[in-house]
Amino acid sequence: MKKIGIVMGSISDFDVVKKAFSVLKDFGVEYEAHVISAHRTPEKAADFAKNAKSNGFGAIIAAAGKAAHLAGAIAANTPLPVIGIPIKSSALDGMDALLATVQMPAGIPVATVAINGAENAAHLAVQILALEDEKLYNKLLDFRKKQTQNAVDADNKLQEML
Amino acid sequence: MKKIGIVMGSISDFDVVKKAFSVLKDFGVEYEAHVISAHRTPEKAADFAKNAKSNGFGAIIAAAGKAAHLAGAIAANTPLPVIGIPIKSSALDGMDALLATVQMPAGIPVATVAINGAENAAHLAVQILALEDEKLYNKLLDFRKKQTQNAVDADNKLQEML
Amino acid sequence: MKKIGIVMGSISDFDVVKKAFSVLKDFGVEYEAHVISAHRTPEKAADFAKNAKSNGFGAIIAAAGKAAHLAGAIAANTPLPVIGIPIKSSALDGMDALLATVQMPAGIPVATVAINGAENAAHLAVQILALEDEKLYNKLLDFRKKQTQNAVDADNKLQEML
Amino acid sequence: MKKIGIVMGSISDFDVVKKAFSVLKDFGVEYEAHVISAHRTPEKAADFAKNAKSNGFGAIIAAAGKAAHLAGAIAANTPLPVIGIPIKSSALDGMDALLATVQMPAGIPVATVAINGAENAAHLAVQILALEDEKLYNKLLDFRKKQTQNAVDADNKLQEML
Amino acid sequence: MKKIGIVMGSISDFDVVKKAFSVLKDFGVEYEAHVISAHRTPEKAADFAKNAKSNGFGAIIAAAGKAAHLAGAIAANTPLPVIGIPIKSSALDGMDALLATVQMPAGIPVATVAINGAENAAHLAVQILALEDEKLYNKLLDFRKKQTQNAVDADNKLQEML
Amino acid sequence: MKKIGIVMGSISDFDVVKKAFSVLKDFGVEYEAHVISAHRTPEKAADFAKNAKSNGFGAIIAAAGKAAHLAGAIAANTPLPVIGIPIKSSALDGMDALLATVQMPAGIPVATVAINGAENAAHLAVQILALEDEKLYNKLLDFRKKQTQNAVDADNKLQEML
Amino acid sequence: MKKIGIVMGSISDFDVVKKAFSVLKDFGVEYEAHVISAHRTPEKAADFAKNAKSNGFGAIIAAAGKAAHLAGAIAANTPLPVIGIPIKSSALDGMDALLATVQMPAGIPVATVAINGAENAAHLAVQILALEDEKLYNKLLDFRKKQTQNAVDADNKLQEML
Amino acid sequence: MKKIGIVMGSISDFDVVKKAFSVLKDFGVEYEAHVISAHRTPEKAADFAKNAKSNGFGAIIAAAGKAAHLAGAIAANTPLPVIGIPIKSSALDGMDALLATVQMPAGIPVATVAINGAENAAHLAVQILALEDEKLYNKLLDFRKKQTQNAVDADNKLQEML
Repeated sequence: MKKIGIVMGSISDFDVVKKAFSVLKDFGVEYEAHVISAHRTPEKAADFAKNAKSNGFGAIIAAAGKAAHLAGAIAANTPLPVIGIPIKSSALDGMDALLATVQMPAGIPVATVAINGAENAAHLAVQILALEDEKLYNKLLDFRKKQTQNAVDADNKLQEML
Repeated sequence: MKKIGIVMGSISDFDVVKKAFSVLKDFGVEYEAHVISAHRTPEKAADFAKNAKSNGFGAIIAAAGKAAHLAGAIAANTPLPVIGIPIKSSALDGMDALLATVQMPAGIPVATVAINGAENAAHLAVQILALEDEKLYNKLLDFRKKQTQNAVDADNKLQEML
Repeated sequence: MKKIGIVMGSISDFDVVKKAFSVLKDFGVEYEAHVISAHRTPEKAADFAKNAKSNGFGAIIAAAGKAAHLAGAIAANTPLPVIGIPIKSSALDGMDALLATVQMPAGIPVATVAINGAENAAHLAVQILALEDEKLYNKLLDFRKKQTQNAVDADNKLQEML
Repeated sequence: MKKIGIVMGSISDFDVVKKAFSVLKDFGVEYEAHVISAHRTPEKAADFAKNAKSNGFGAIIAAAGKAAHLAGAIAANTPLPVIGIPIKSSALDGMDALLATVQMPAGIPVATVAINGAENAAHLAVQILALEDEKLYNKLLDFRKKQTQNAVDADNKLQEML
Repeated sequence: MKKIGIVMGSISDFDVVKKAFSVLKDFGVEYEAHVISAHRTPEKAADFAKNAKSNGFGAIIAAAGKAAHLAGAIAANTPLPVIGIPIKSSALDGMDALLATVQMPAGIPVATVAINGAENAAHLAVQILALEDEKLYNKLLDFRKKQTQNAVDADNKLQEML
Repeated sequence: MKKIGIVMGSISDFDVVKKAFSVLKDFGVEYEAHVISAHRTPEKAADFAKNAKSNGFGAIIAAAGKAAHLAGAIAANTPLPVIGIPIKSSALDGMDALLATVQMPAGIPVATVAINGAENAAHLAVQILALEDEKLYNKLLDFRKKQTQNAVDADNKLQEML
Repeated sequence: MKKIGIVMGSISDFDVVKKAFSVLKDFGVEYEAHVISAHRTPEKAADFAKNAKSNGFGAIIAAAGKAAHLAGAIAANTPLPVIGIPIKSSALDGMDALLATVQMPAGIPVATVAINGAENAAHLAVQILALEDEKLYNKLLDFRKKQTQNAVDADNKLQEML
Repeated sequence: MKKIGIVMGSISDFDVVKKAFSVLKDFGVEYEAHVISAHRTPEKAADFAKNAKSNGFGAIIAAAGKAAHLAGAIAANTPLPVIGIPIKSSALDGMDALLATVQMPAGIPVATVAINGAENAAHLAVQILALEDEKLYNKLLDFRKKQTQNAVDADNKLQEML
């Protein structure tokens, strides 16, 4: 199975991004994570993206805040699917990062998830890998069932609280 | 090769969404398109999503405006990758559709592209299918080269305009 | 008298939504509350809405945050009045939930109240039930009088503070 | 059957609001419409609201733009359900009217619909009246069926366009 | 000298509004303050405004949050200058109150100051009264001089901090 | 009677600002208008403000777009009441001008009206002058009556249109 | 004298950017312009930036719309001053480009001007070059004088229009 | 070498602005800092700007919040490069200061950095001075290398955390 690459613009993004690690582990998906900055290590960003395919990555998750160029910088250098997590790290509550991540020009998409939505970035990566992996797809179905059950349990808990 | 499903909330979204058709055709990717509304035909939306895998779809593109629930409604009913196109169709210039599409809760991701970004939705779908299809991946590489060449040509044209 | 259905997307919305319970109790209006998620339990949401009329509900209050689809998902499946409470639960202070709740397409309205406006959702539900219930209508008139008196009392208190 | 009151802050709102008239006519619901301004005719607004119940109104639709106080001014003077239509009539695309209409304080709700959402204001009014009127409720069910059929027809039309 | 009327929508606005009291006291301007709500005590609001001139008021300051209608409701009932203070009291950081206060329709102005700008509301009121009161005007000149001196002192303090 | 000073940042603001001229003429209030830019003619702005009192002005209206500093620059140089009109003249629909005009620091108020609200700026100026001018105050009362009558006429017109 | 480099993300930005050419010509400043895309020609962007100093550039102006990464991508690869022009080219009126350009992380500044502010980007570049070029500095002083005179002329024109 | 002038609208901006001092010290660039308010000490602002060139300044950094006019007021009075830092100091999270700083009219640019972006304001100032100072330019190259190394170190640290 292909690996998922996870890059974050700053080590300070770790607390948000680690939720993605956790999801990937739960699904048994191998990943590799790096601090790579579109602005401070632009060559490393380009190299990581250009070699991602040959290094066995199936998709890349990129998390960055403020003028969040990281996902776009990765996407510019590989036709692998790139998933962007806008990080809330500035005065503007992540709206700047959301727009800088999602409003990409035609031809270079970034699959953007919610502000700080690291879990969903990982889920999306799993969904992509599951396309040709029935076992992984079934794990997603199991996760959905468990998620549904959790909501049912929460409803039962609510009845006790009323 | 798997097909791409494309759903739009209203026939009035056609003029934006047709750019996605065009990209998929260029890449030789089969697709099926439907008008399906999260609010006017909710069962059809759920059924389409639930049967998407068995009907041979590899990913689903969902385009909707205003309180754009369509991508989320599809995503809630399948673990296939769902790509959301926020449509600009209200007084709020598509910001409502962007937020209603991208800010999904944990566990149910929607891979969101730019407002009216139909081309990128299609590109993202191709990238996902290309994961296990070297021929398609090479077409993406070719597209990127052509795109780069177009930018170079534009630069040459600019020199004549100066 | 008809019951009011109250659904919330997550048990974490309880602290906001409980103000609605409190108002309904004060007016002697029966209610039933459930955790139902548009994305995690979409069938339960559809079923709840479809059976709401026959189960004796007169109106449904739906509270959800982020890409708040719950009220719309309920409204898509019943012509009963649906009241939406946008919950502040994300980086965007509830603006995402407000737009995802209020900007519904023609034909499927959601009666939207303020962000976190659980009390007003309940008041609106009572107003709707009061339409054919003079006793309940009079309780609303009494509440208004009391509310006016509270404002008068606050003014008196202010005079002492000056 | 009770009547629906429709007030608009300015005659210039007519082109938006007339869609509400049309919906009410389709459902056979009687209505009365007035130009009433919260700022230019505040007493008329208060009087209209105070007498609405005794004048046979079951709900009031109020449409206004900019600092849209009309719905709130009506709601402050009657416990009947008040439905607010934020009108797009300023530099700010109706966002000002939306916030001025929906962000009401506790105890005085306004059931807010989308910016320029006159059709949905009327639908909501019909839903409220239908609570105790099975015939009207059935008309709503018929409308929903027709709306669903229209979406199906649009899908068929799309297939021809592909 | 005429008095300044100060109305606030809720006693909870006191902590912001008291800065206006303080400024008026410093200038020796008489004021009268009341809790008056556009929605909970609409008649009191209208009466206060209608009688403001004959009761000796020269201008009215109105402070309110959320769908802040109070200043507009006062302005609708008197041609005295009305000064609006948008209060930050909701999820939206006072942007709702700002737009609901400032975006008034032609013919009924509200002189709006910054969000929570109680001091400036008082200063504006003093400036208005000073128009025909040379002594008060000179106090304003003195205040400006003192304010300038404070900024000079702050600069000196900064030099020590460097 | 004192004059009203009207300054606009650019001659291109004339089409909006001329509505203020028209209102002042209707009320028989003398005014003087100038193109003065906070950035292109900063000394002229300061001089105009500093001499405004001695030149017989009672209040100053300042209209500017984008980073609208004009009203603030005037207000910094005179304790006369300064009324700001945020002009819609940029990509941001006047929101930039609104915030740059209204969010003034403590001690230097700008009485801000709606985006492009030139009529209300003039009305506010008249209200301020009317404080010590019963004849002018009565004209304002007459205007209000006429405005109310216009709304009544519009309502009558609406009845014919229904 | 050093040259100014001007890069634009797309030839479609030409109509905005040409105002910068015009300003530079007026000041006799040599410039070189290119279509370079952060996403379509990322290597060309990096190379242009890395060689800018040795190629005789003193500052670089970068214009881009939507998720406007171009200025940041240039700035990441050179310590020359980089001036960013956010281009209005999407549904969001350039707000996306503004935030993606200005909200840069510490260490990699982009000197951002107004949305579509191509003239000011050029002026800023001239100001930077003028730092060590008295002749150019004097041209800036002359421009300012002319600009002031234009405002005075506009004021005279206004007097005729009144 | 020329000095950098740093002005802040209020001593309360010190905690943000001191990061700029720190950067300038690291680069061995002389600076002078002052509390100067566009509104409270407008003449001082104008004088500082007018004399900046003859007093040996090469660029001016101006930091202000809310209706942040300081950078614009400085820029209006000197053709030296003016760098604006929008300060987050109000209910609106610095968005007001950003727009009031960046949206300058043609002819009077302000080189705007991120909200609270004091470090980048200093970096930009150093970049400008470095244009004619090879030693300083080399320090910038060294800083970039160190910054890159820090990102590499952070990546290594991340590997230990995984």
